Amino acid sequence: MAKIRLCVEHPLGQGQTVPLERDQAHYLFGVMRQGEGTMVALFNGRDGEWQAEVTQAGKRGGELVCRSQSRPQSHPPDLWLLFAPIKKARTDFIVEKAAEMGAAKIQPVQTEFTNAERIRRDRLQAHAVEAAEQCGATHVAEVEDLVKLDRLLADWPEDRQLMVCDEAFADASYGTPDGAPRPLSDAPRGAWAVLIGPEGGFSPAERRRLHSQPFVWPVQLGPRILRADTAAVAALTLWQATLGDW
Amino acid sequence: MAKIRLCVEHPLGQGQTVPLERDQAHYLFGVMRQGEGTMVALFNGRDGEWQAEVTQAGKRGGELVCRSQSRPQSHPPDLWLLFAPIKKARTDFIVEKAAEMGAAKIQPVQTEFTNAERIRRDRLQAHAVEAAEQCGATHVAEVEDLVKLDRLLADWPEDRQLMVCDEAFADASYGTPDGAPRPLSDAPRGAWAVLIGPEGGFSPAERRRLHSQPFVWPVQLGPRILRADTAAVAALTLWQATLGDW
Repeated sequence: MAKIRLCVEHPLGQGQTVPLERDQAHYLFGVMRQGEGTMVALFNGRDGEWQAEVTQAGKRGGELVCRSQSRPQSHPPDLWLLFAPIKKARTDFIVEKAAEMGAAKIQPVQTEFTNAERIRRDRLQAHAVEAAEQCGATHVAEVEDLVKLDRLLADWPEDRQLMVCDEAFADASYGTPDGAPRPLSDAPRGAWAVLIGPEGGFSPAERRRLHSQPFVWPVQLGPRILRADTAAVAALTLWQATLGDW
Repeated sequence: MAKIRLCVEHPLGQGQTVPLERDQAHYLFGVMRQGEGTMVALFNGRDGEWQAEVTQAGKRGGELVCRSQSRPQSHPPDLWLLFAPIKKARTDFIVEKAAEMGAAKIQPVQTEFTNAERIRRDRLQAHAVEAAEQCGATHVAEVEDLVKLDRLLADWPEDRQLMVCDEAFADASYGTPDGAPRPLSDAPRGAWAVLIGPEGGFSPAERRRLHSQPFVWPVQLGPRILRADTAAVAALTLWQATLGDW
């Protein structure tokens, strides 16, 4: 079995020839010092994973031929991760972790207390691809452009549930008639999103707005304050273990 | 309420004077530009959290006086995190995350496939202190010196359960008579540890040895391969949500 996995755009199938782009040729033949005859695992998010043999190795490109399918295409849960961007390195981590944890879509969200006003979508997408290559997934999480939270809630698809992680929810009566939050295990399966708040917390107006949405499921992540990247993994773990594919 | 939190060695109590060490004086007065009259939250892992006022601010030291207790001392679950050190930045992350997630002890473990043969315990301990300062905890996770896995298992305290995260456990019949792993929710509360395997996995001998221990609870973290730092947060989340203080 190939040890190196690459995500490609090209269709994959029995005997299919797959050209390599310059960057990937540089990585495979330059950095990893592989050559003709090497087996590489390829996936494209549609056709599963294929064991492919390098048939041409050059400095600026190369070619592989698909020999056999090693995994069928997987269909991850319909889960979005929504998060407020933070410092560059930790934003990169959140994207990497969301991809590993099986999120289908990664949506950066601008809240009132979000510091980062811009993200580099292409750079974050590259991190998601790299995480997919490394974690053995056959799909790649899609990274979206930054959207304001208000806008996102205004356009919210009514059949998608939203798990909101907010330590202040504990103080607010919400959910069941006695004020206790509805347990996640009672929630419907299907389309979901998980929202991680900004490090400065949600604003009072944002909190009120989130509270009033029927699709919102508030969740608390323990008695300590978690950094946003820790909270992202913890929230996705709870979701995957309760409603997802774990 | 003070925004800056500092972990100190000195006893804390009503009216108690607390000297500041050089590093903390530099941080508080140099980096953060605070001075006399500033309120700072102090904790030492024994006496809870205190609001303290700066009464002397100097370049090489300073002094605070405890004015009022703002939190009682918390007693986190008796949970150790055992992990095989990986690359420096990710090892730092694991320690930071374990501290945020409320581990009482962080134990680096050398397995057959662990690359890092040395760790800097003092540096990792400083990361755990910083994480405690930032996450609002009143206790600090203790970082231990690197120990070989064999040694650790030979000296294992018999009343401590061990949750082992290993994707290969799925293939091995272990646990209940029909081969399904025992569910964590059936496990006893009390003293626990969570073991995250090295990125290269456990060796066959290690796996056999872990399998044969009555205190081992194997857990699988989903169908994708998680990096060790992601796995640490995911495993601690499962444990905290099922058996801990969440």
